[in-house]
Amino acid sequence: MERQRQQGSWSIISMFVVASIIGTVVGISLTSSLAFSASQAGKSWAKFDASGNLIKPEGYREWVYVGAPLTPDDMNDGKAPFPEFHSVYIDPDSYKHYTRTGNFRDGTIIVKELISVGSKEAPSGNGYFMGDFIGLEATVKDSKRFAKEPANWAYFTFSPVPPRPNVMMKPKAKMMPTESCNLCHQGFAQHDWVFTQYYPVLKAAKP
Amino acid sequence: MERQRQQGSWSIISMFVVASIIGTVVGISLTSSLAFSASQAGKSWAKFDASGNLIKPEGYREWVYVGAPLTPDDMNDGKAPFPEFHSVYIDPDSYKHYTRTGNFRDGTIIVKELISVGSKEAPSGNGYFMGDFIGLEATVKDSKRFAKEPANWAYFTFSPVPPRPNVMMKPKAKMMPTESCNLCHQGFAQHDWVFTQYYPVLKAAKP
Repeated sequence: MERQRQQGSWSIISMFVVASIIGTVVGISLTSSLAFSASQAGKSWAKFDASGNLIKPEGYREWVYVGAPLTPDDMNDGKAPFPEFHSVYIDPDSYKHYTRTGNFRDGTIIVKELISVGSKEAPSGNGYFMGDFIGLEATVKDSKRFAKEPANWAYFTFSPVPPRPNVMMKPKAKMMPTESCNLCHQGFAQHDWVFTQYYPVLKAAKP
Repeated sequence: MERQRQQGSWSIISMFVVASIIGTVVGISLTSSLAFSASQAGKSWAKFDASGNLIKPEGYREWVYVGAPLTPDDMNDGKAPFPEFHSVYIDPDSYKHYTRTGNFRDGTIIVKELISVGSKEAPSGNGYFMGDFIGLEATVKDSKRFAKEPANWAYFTFSPVPPRPNVMMKPKAKMMPTESCNLCHQGFAQHDWVFTQYYPVLKAAKP
């Protein structure tokens, strides 16, 4: 009788232990699969409000930088269309997709941060050196939201007009008229309306 | 008796359920705290071989980009010391530390990737546009390994000599002689031997 009772409590304890182990394994898999699905879900990093305005992206300086074209005012009669350095970033999930496929997935967001020329002389030589942040532009590829746009890309600007430092970027932006951006992208961009020819990181990442 | 037995199996089932829930919570916390400690460990991203050579960093194009100075050959009598674009990156853990403290932690690695000028005209205007990867430089701050170096920074180059495209970077590099790099950094760099004045991302991230 005593032995039976002992056996009974042992089997309850072992059942408890087994259940805890199963639970722990379930917990770990659950967390890992959630983390996995977050990065693989194909969820876009572009966020829109209810009226379809693109909300100013945050944290893009920790995205993947792809290149920095420079169109200084002093080489463009004082009026570069995009003054002056353009640091260009792609969201990390779309970058991963690009390294696997060589294509921009649905939901890709590419950000272009405009930076003034701060100086033209440094210990490393004559040249162009970055000054202040003065503008922020973005493009988003979305086959549902921008079904009618060429290649489903839409363009947005958060920059003050004219671009200048110490001015807050707009918190959200309406899509630009198609013709104002797409004409250049459509005619001259190397791959899928994106100027990959100026982005060595994307050129190198193409599988 | 039947009722007692029923109550018994119910309490075993509820114990099993409770144990599973506890296990799941333990599993989730365990995974999260592991992920947390991996990013907070303060481990350096710089890797050295047994002889103290810095091993060429990998994956730095997914680190945090801080700025891109440009010293084109055509503005430096055809011979820029660092031709031509310099895409500069910091490892993500040291960037996080910098955003919290405004300082470069022990173990910081900063990478400078050299890129040729590919063209000087584009749809966005006249300027300088990136061509090919032609060199790779790095600096590491390590108070133990480089105890005798000014501010504990050492400098390394993986670039071919002269810098040129389609040439493999060296797989590892010996520390450069102190005087060959430190003189400029010591005299002109804005913060702790780093040219933060040309890196707007670091200027903006300073707390």
